[in-house]
Amino acid sequence: MDREKYSAGVWVFGSCPDRFVSRGYKDALPLEDRLKLVTEVWGISGIEAQYPSDFSAEDVDRVKGLLETYGLKLSMVCIDVYSDRKWQRGSLAAADEPIRQAAIATVKEAMDMAEQLGAMQVNFWGGHDGFDYPFQADYAGAWTRLVEGLRECASHRPNVRLCIEYKAKEPRTHLYVDTAAKALLLVNQVKRENVGVTLDTGHSLMAGENMAEAASMLSSAGKLFHLHFNDNYRDWDHDMIAGTVHLWEYLELLLWLRLLDYRGWYSLDMDPYREDPVYACSESFRNIDALREVVNSLNLDHLREEIKKENLREVQPLLRTALIRSS
Amino acid sequence: MDREKYSAGVWVFGSCPDRFVSRGYKDALPLEDRLKLVTEVWGISGIEAQYPSDFSAEDVDRVKGLLETYGLKLSMVCIDVYSDRKWQRGSLAAADEPIRQAAIATVKEAMDMAEQLGAMQVNFWGGHDGFDYPFQADYAGAWTRLVEGLRECASHRPNVRLCIEYKAKEPRTHLYVDTAAKALLLVNQVKRENVGVTLDTGHSLMAGENMAEAASMLSSAGKLFHLHFNDNYRDWDHDMIAGTVHLWEYLELLLWLRLLDYRGWYSLDMDPYREDPVYACSESFRNIDALREVVNSLNLDHLREEIKKENLREVQPLLRTALIRSS
Amino acid sequence: MDREKYSAGVWVFGSCPDRFVSRGYKDALPLEDRLKLVTEVWGISGIEAQYPSDFSAEDVDRVKGLLETYGLKLSMVCIDVYSDRKWQRGSLAAADEPIRQAAIATVKEAMDMAEQLGAMQVNFWGGHDGFDYPFQADYAGAWTRLVEGLRECASHRPNVRLCIEYKAKEPRTHLYVDTAAKALLLVNQVKRENVGVTLDTGHSLMAGENMAEAASMLSSAGKLFHLHFNDNYRDWDHDMIAGTVHLWEYLELLLWLRLLDYRGWYSLDMDPYREDPVYACSESFRNIDALREVVNSLNLDHLREEIKKENLREVQPLLRTALIRSS
Amino acid sequence: MDREKYSAGVWVFGSCPDRFVSRGYKDALPLEDRLKLVTEVWGISGIEAQYPSDFSAEDVDRVKGLLETYGLKLSMVCIDVYSDRKWQRGSLAAADEPIRQAAIATVKEAMDMAEQLGAMQVNFWGGHDGFDYPFQADYAGAWTRLVEGLRECASHRPNVRLCIEYKAKEPRTHLYVDTAAKALLLVNQVKRENVGVTLDTGHSLMAGENMAEAASMLSSAGKLFHLHFNDNYRDWDHDMIAGTVHLWEYLELLLWLRLLDYRGWYSLDMDPYREDPVYACSESFRNIDALREVVNSLNLDHLREEIKKENLREVQPLLRTALIRSS
Repeated sequence: MDREKYSAGVWVFGSCPDRFVSRGYKDALPLEDRLKLVTEVWGISGIEAQYPSDFSAEDVDRVKGLLETYGLKLSMVCIDVYSDRKWQRGSLAAADEPIRQAAIATVKEAMDMAEQLGAMQVNFWGGHDGFDYPFQADYAGAWTRLVEGLRECASHRPNVRLCIEYKAKEPRTHLYVDTAAKALLLVNQVKRENVGVTLDTGHSLMAGENMAEAASMLSSAGKLFHLHFNDNYRDWDHDMIAGTVHLWEYLELLLWLRLLDYRGWYSLDMDPYREDPVYACSESFRNIDALREVVNSLNLDHLREEIKKENLREVQPLLRTALIRSS
Repeated sequence: MDREKYSAGVWVFGSCPDRFVSRGYKDALPLEDRLKLVTEVWGISGIEAQYPSDFSAEDVDRVKGLLETYGLKLSMVCIDVYSDRKWQRGSLAAADEPIRQAAIATVKEAMDMAEQLGAMQVNFWGGHDGFDYPFQADYAGAWTRLVEGLRECASHRPNVRLCIEYKAKEPRTHLYVDTAAKALLLVNQVKRENVGVTLDTGHSLMAGENMAEAASMLSSAGKLFHLHFNDNYRDWDHDMIAGTVHLWEYLELLLWLRLLDYRGWYSLDMDPYREDPVYACSESFRNIDALREVVNSLNLDHLREEIKKENLREVQPLLRTALIRSS
Repeated sequence: MDREKYSAGVWVFGSCPDRFVSRGYKDALPLEDRLKLVTEVWGISGIEAQYPSDFSAEDVDRVKGLLETYGLKLSMVCIDVYSDRKWQRGSLAAADEPIRQAAIATVKEAMDMAEQLGAMQVNFWGGHDGFDYPFQADYAGAWTRLVEGLRECASHRPNVRLCIEYKAKEPRTHLYVDTAAKALLLVNQVKRENVGVTLDTGHSLMAGENMAEAASMLSSAGKLFHLHFNDNYRDWDHDMIAGTVHLWEYLELLLWLRLLDYRGWYSLDMDPYREDPVYACSESFRNIDALREVVNSLNLDHLREEIKKENLREVQPLLRTALIRSS
Repeated sequence: MDREKYSAGVWVFGSCPDRFVSRGYKDALPLEDRLKLVTEVWGISGIEAQYPSDFSAEDVDRVKGLLETYGLKLSMVCIDVYSDRKWQRGSLAAADEPIRQAAIATVKEAMDMAEQLGAMQVNFWGGHDGFDYPFQADYAGAWTRLVEGLRECASHRPNVRLCIEYKAKEPRTHLYVDTAAKALLLVNQVKRENVGVTLDTGHSLMAGENMAEAASMLSSAGKLFHLHFNDNYRDWDHDMIAGTVHLWEYLELLLWLRLLDYRGWYSLDMDPYREDPVYACSESFRNIDALREVVNSLNLDHLREEIKKENLREVQPLLRTALIRSS
């Protein structure tokens, strides 16, 4: 099994605050201590980090050194236009022009960082780009600002991929880029080679999507750039250990990633509030790995033929016996 | 208040079966009896009917006569590729090629009917074009079939509008065209002038959308062709009396329809299982009408300015006092 | 593995209508033909049937003969106070007193049938006992009628168990007995030994419950009388093949049923609209059986100790390796 | 209109952190500054405060003085067994016995505070008393600990009301006391006069309840002790301005509170992340007040009769014309 593309966000090893326990469920740790923990995770080879909150432009050399010391690659630079309260009414879609310009500048800087650190891709999640109440938003205006902002950023460094991560809600009650289809609409409108989509499995489940269908649609358009793994109960972005709730649908996603020849990262974006992060990441990868092993055990040509015929009564027993030890 | 565009589906005046009461909550009525009931509805001027289940090609003259007799316009021909069990595995997206061809033929015939009867638009809802189980569907294949089928149909009569109605689920657990964004993606890929979208308010609510945002997005693309009204609790397509649950969001939708200069129909698609259909339709129109009256009472220029500034604390009290009698 | 308690509703082998395909996805079959199909199901030994829609009082001897001929037990008499449109505004909770009395009479007759046919238990699901709209119901009045009706019925035959099946919605938008907790509240208020609860796994998932927690709560009160199996996506009662969506939570339920020493039936209540019913039931039992085999493979004393300590990082890997073939 | 019972939590005037903006959307303010803001709220006469996070035992005299100075009553002491990370695995239901004892001690102290400060009631919300993952919890054990803990606390001060606030989820993915029915089951099992329920409108909506039905059920049992107001989209506890989403159902709740002769507080529990708290509270009270005015304008005897008959077509137009200014 190829595990060269297993990665995790360094925030998974953070203090994990929420609105009730705002000081966090754990102590905050310096970046280096978190990287040390990362190396204890089963199967991992990369990390994601947030710019400018996990590191700043001055830290580039230090981060390079740390990555080398701990034998880790940087899989992604996540653009943090959400944790500072100044972004509370939006970033690239903000109605406030100075804020929108600050967001554009931050995206560009993050793209610079991604090039200097070899990640060659940045993740844009506009967590505050949305609205809370009826009558609050000028929908078309916000969308236009989003399109124009992304286009400007994409042109800044055409060799760095700009991955748009969709999410239906939180921290706003409604985010503009809420589903895979909306993200693809946006990407199509932005019309830049280097702009694509990050599919977060939990966001996909929460949006009522079938994850494999979303991956398939994005892949058909050449826009499935990146994957975030975690799990939930479809009701909220609980950011749980991957594969601990939706086993069948995880298996279907991994089957299709293989059929679609996905070559990108399998990266963990979780919030293990009450769990040890090394355990949470390791268990996630063991689940993903076990399911990829199940996929490997299948006769894929035969399976694909039967799926094309929608021959469920042939397909389900094949998968049951491949997955469940005692069947 | 202009009520020339108030319409309802003739099925609202039908027997309203469900899976438990399969013989219906009421007696079935012949088309003419239903049209008589339609004329008792407050404010109505049009109907929608399904081809070929409500009328067939042989019925065209009779239907024309009935419409004249009862002073009603035909607002829409709904393509029925769902009530016969032969469609159970899909229509335009069906993996079974003869079924898919039969669906294409039915769409074309419905377009012919729409022209002969003056509706000049048909509604395509692929209720079985989706899947139920993980591992059941070849997602990209189904999508391609859908695109190609729609393109062929659209070219059959470029002067008849082909309105795609999206819905996230039911009768399949997942339908391919599930959200306004997915519908617009599809329409963009089909690339035909006469192909657009029907926004069903209940489908929009069930998909977790803000109805005004969906309408705004479709309208910006010139693709908001038609509207179906009903209400629910966001959890399922209950097809309830319009405006009896989501009053604020209905008001926001009607406000934006005005701002977007929507000129199409306000058509009711409901299933009043336990209610008198004349009452259910009349009450729906009275709700819609009252809310449009509220919109009319507002200073729209001022309101739009404040919404552009996302000035909620100015906007909410304006709307509260405009809407609530005692405030 | 003991499969003496595997059962299915005879309606699973029916025509499966829904509101769009009201004539059904399949042809209707006479009871005997359905029983023949039942015997083809892997592992099955019993059936559930509805009174008076699947059989009437006059049919008792014939049904006895059929059960004998096909070697099947009757696991449950389901009281049908929902498929006739006369029940559309409620049965035991109906505001209309003659309807309520008719419902009481039907429950009592069903209890008579259950005794004569050896099932010794009836299932009461008040599908129309609820409301659709705000301002529609006199909540406390309906609840009192429900309590008094059940009490009267329970006293009719104290040796026949009266199992109340809860469901949050459908066919009403809200049913009164919506969750396991509400069902237990009701049972506690009825205060009769022979009144307990049917836990339908799909209803539990749709209500946002953890099925094992619900089973545990009902079992602690001595009121877990019966189980209905099927699956869905938590959003609606899709009545899918059991275990095809929620594998982990199914495993947890089966683990707890073992720990709680549940001795009742494992009965299928599904609507396999587009699937062969023999396949759908067989695959359900194979899923359930495989998961029960997984439970059998575990060191249950050790597992229970670790669960008591909420030692997730010990428990999850144990279950992963027990369940997933390749882990 | 009697507004003597309008209250709000002092946390509404706090920094409103969430997991992304953990330092808060606003600056934190000392208690006195928050009370000053409270006095600016339209219609308010009381506050809720959390023990021991908003004030400690040493602060009693100071708090008394502040309440006097600002002319406010203390409507409730909220027991804070959630904001300190030590409670992360539960309070009264914790498997860890020392933590459980600490929780019992905190509840008792809060009851002492409530007596000294004249609130005479405390609110218990066990935010961490639940579980996140399948296989994580020993359900029956946790329930027993909860019952016994509450019973012990209730006996500490029988003259102080112990109000249990139910919530389906957050910060755990599942809380044990998730619905009004489960809360009432718990209260019935605890069997103490002074133990009842707090109905939080947002929690009720999120649990899929009809708020009026929940209030009615609790009131019938004499256990509707307290009310928290806020709004959301049924999907999550967004803690929005009351009445800005669910207008009809809010009106129904307020109608029933009047019919049920509810005499307790109308208290706001909101998180106005991006809104001015004085505005958010004032707008909430104006919405509530306007709807209560609508209730006052109705012929309640007539309305109640029609509701008893479930005469929707009489009831809905009455309410439409009472509520909507232009109808």
